[in-house]
Amino acid sequence: MGSSLDTLRKQLDEVNLEILELINRRAEIVQQIGQIKSKQSMKKFDPVREREMLDLITSHNTGPFENSTIEHIFKEIFKAGLELQEDDHRKALLV
Amino acid sequence: MGSSLDTLRKQLDEVNLEILELINRRAEIVQQIGQIKSKQSMKKFDPVREREMLDLITSHNTGPFENSTIEHIFKEIFKAGLELQEDDHRKALLV
Repeated sequence: MGSSLDTLRKQLDEVNLEILELINRRAEIVQQIGQIKSKQSMKKFDPVREREMLDLITSHNTGPFENSTIEHIFKEIFKAGLELQEDDHRKALLV
Repeated sequence: MGSSLDTLRKQLDEVNLEILELINRRAEIVQQIGQIKSKQSMKKFDPVREREMLDLITSHNTGPFENSTIEHIFKEIFKAGLELQEDDHRKALLV
């Protein structure tokens, strides 16, 4: 029993690192979008686009997480992405 | 310019769905761990193990997200996993 717990924990660590990689890859894309939006003086936060992303995500959700949980987690990821864009903007102003 | 924004948004949607898949795969592993822990009357929440997972994750973090942001997002994912285990436990008691 102990060994199957160990195996599952190793799997969990691997999936954690894959999630880490994807979250950072997502952040890089968000930074590129932020740069384009800065040049075009577009607003960083677009609630309509955010709703569209969440709808697309939950329409593909097969569980076990419920849609509400998935939305909650992704909203945290979106918020972190926005904060990153704001940091980049601030740094750009300081150059 | 508009088309490169579209391209980046498509990439973002793809990465979102990959994150969704991994988060749910993670949840399945967490459910299996929860079942083993239930049988052995082990506590679901293990702060030492959670700290170990976070340390492993941040030690692999190459950015652009800062470690504090990564920890924040993962703590939300961990919390959702724990809630899922509690739901499973409640359902098991009702059977």
